[in-house]
Amino acid sequence: MPNLRAHNIAVSLDGFATGEGQSLETPFGHAGQRLMGHFFPTRTFVAMTGRQGGTRGIDDAFAAQAWDGIGAEIMGRNKFGWQRGPWPGESWRGWWGEQPPFRTPVIVLTHHPRPDLAVGETTFLFRDATPQEALAEAVDLAGGLDVRLGGGPTSIREFLDADLVDLLHVVVSPILLGRGVRLWDGQEGLEQRFDVETTASPSGVVHHVFSRRPR
Amino acid sequence: MPNLRAHNIAVSLDGFATGEGQSLETPFGHAGQRLMGHFFPTRTFVAMTGRQGGTRGIDDAFAAQAWDGIGAEIMGRNKFGWQRGPWPGESWRGWWGEQPPFRTPVIVLTHHPRPDLAVGETTFLFRDATPQEALAEAVDLAGGLDVRLGGGPTSIREFLDADLVDLLHVVVSPILLGRGVRLWDGQEGLEQRFDVETTASPSGVVHHVFSRRPR
Repeated sequence: MPNLRAHNIAVSLDGFATGEGQSLETPFGHAGQRLMGHFFPTRTFVAMTGRQGGTRGIDDAFAAQAWDGIGAEIMGRNKFGWQRGPWPGESWRGWWGEQPPFRTPVIVLTHHPRPDLAVGETTFLFRDATPQEALAEAVDLAGGLDVRLGGGPTSIREFLDADLVDLLHVVVSPILLGRGVRLWDGQEGLEQRFDVETTASPSGVVHHVFSRRPR
Repeated sequence: MPNLRAHNIAVSLDGFATGEGQSLETPFGHAGQRLMGHFFPTRTFVAMTGRQGGTRGIDDAFAAQAWDGIGAEIMGRNKFGWQRGPWPGESWRGWWGEQPPFRTPVIVLTHHPRPDLAVGETTFLFRDATPQEALAEAVDLAGGLDVRLGGGPTSIREFLDADLVDLLHVVVSPILLGRGVRLWDGQEGLEQRFDVETTASPSGVVHHVFSRRPR
């Protein structure tokens, strides 16, 4: 069976995966880019910007895993854009420019319909679906490869609640955001379903890998 | 100047320093002893129980620091006992038996008066005081040594809010408690006043040391 994997989910020490006040100018709200500070120097990120070089230590090793063996992604609508409610037209094509890094089908979970959207080698499919329905379609689209659960925190919690997540990689940055959207709300006892491995990086972040125990 | 130091403040990955439902039988509420699992094997804890042996790795190194150069402690009343409101008599003498490990004066912050209480080599002084007042008295009592801020989370937040804390050592366990008392509430931007060093232990916990920058 293909796995459902969430990688590089960055949270503050107080558990916020995104700040307050998302907008066009501030995709992560008041958090700004502070949750991603460990990611920008990595070879994986540098390559995504079309450049060469970058670090190849532990932060890059974890960053790179997100792109290995993935045939489709599922994301929440707040990862796709800052709009709320019905879509104000179809001009918004995501944060990623004309060649988004996904290069696979991407299911965007939303209660508001919108036609499929091809951008570069990525196709965004807007679906009002349960986690189970979205995963079933994504598995079909992935052609035998795994499915990435891209975030944000609200959609990750929904898939954890439905017990559909096989791997969850969380990166904790030693900052206190104080407000925003929490990743861990309502997840009491999660560790009973997962093996957890913890590694501190020289960059100051801590990588937590939750691997689903065999059912 | 003596320092105010909080050591071995154990929290879950979702930031709870104690569980819900503190009682005589459950001093940490539904968390039970799970936040202290890394502590029990250490030489420092084993010695506190009058036995010999125990581990001497990183968890012990951090545990031992809490007892080095301390002349007084300040604790919240919920660390001293599970009672709320006016004290129901004076029979409760703390969780620690007839020889509490502190062996110094201990200021217990409470809005409800109670006579001083000597137990073994420890004296508990019950005070309705501001953080500044409590610290001033503790520094006097400490005779030139440092003051330990013993917890729980509510009192630690009060002293952080007053910017009186010089060292904060937090141990994060990879469990999700889901409910209880949060350590980090209202601490947005704390990292701007502190240097932060992070170390993962083979036991699975992560040690975060916040050292106050020079003022």
